[in-house]
Amino acid sequence: MKYTKHIFVCTNQRALGTRICCGEQHGLALVAEFKKQIKDLGLNTEIRAQRAGCMETCELGPSVVVYPEGVFYGKVQLADVKEIVHEHIANDRIVERLVMDLQKLKELQSK
Amino acid sequence: MKYTKHIFVCTNQRALGTRICCGEQHGLALVAEFKKQIKDLGLNTEIRAQRAGCMETCELGPSVVVYPEGVFYGKVQLADVKEIVHEHIANDRIVERLVMDLQKLKELQSK
Repeated sequence: MKYTKHIFVCTNQRALGTRICCGEQHGLALVAEFKKQIKDLGLNTEIRAQRAGCMETCELGPSVVVYPEGVFYGKVQLADVKEIVHEHIANDRIVERLVMDLQKLKELQSK
Repeated sequence: MKYTKHIFVCTNQRALGTRICCGEQHGLALVAEFKKQIKDLGLNTEIRAQRAGCMETCELGPSVVVYPEGVFYGKVQLADVKEIVHEHIANDRIVERLVMDLQKLKELQSK
């Protein structure tokens, strides 16, 4: 596998006043913060954090997914990035408090 | 896992005359073709194909990665999408002829 962890951060943007959207909040700032934290740990050749388009998890965004595990994190704030990187990315300990509630997402999306 | 397969297609674009870049070729058309092929098979709730930023595999792009397997496909043409979807996405048979040569990528990137 090219990357031991591949982190996609939604940076999608929509026209104001339409459906809520991750990137309007702080998507690009999240990408920059992930890159910084990963580089600070010297992990930037084996791990990549990057921009992505809409992952259809808008209602619980800002959204981040970590592969190959496929763990979605929701409502991710800049202050959460260090914990995700130090716990999950560097030590394979999923940050349970930030894991997206996919059942709740379904309910929100069916409204 | 939210998606049984999550396909990211590089749609990055750079200023003309700088480093070669997937999105300048046909990144967005690839995304549309993946979406169409997946929908045609009725797989569009469990599988997602979407835009992504640069995956640092530019030299062998247009680039597509399929997670959770982490298989990178390189030099992907519109005519290749149907095969990837029917073989890999629907039937878990990796399309070997399109798998990116990561050793070659390293060599090209070290030049």
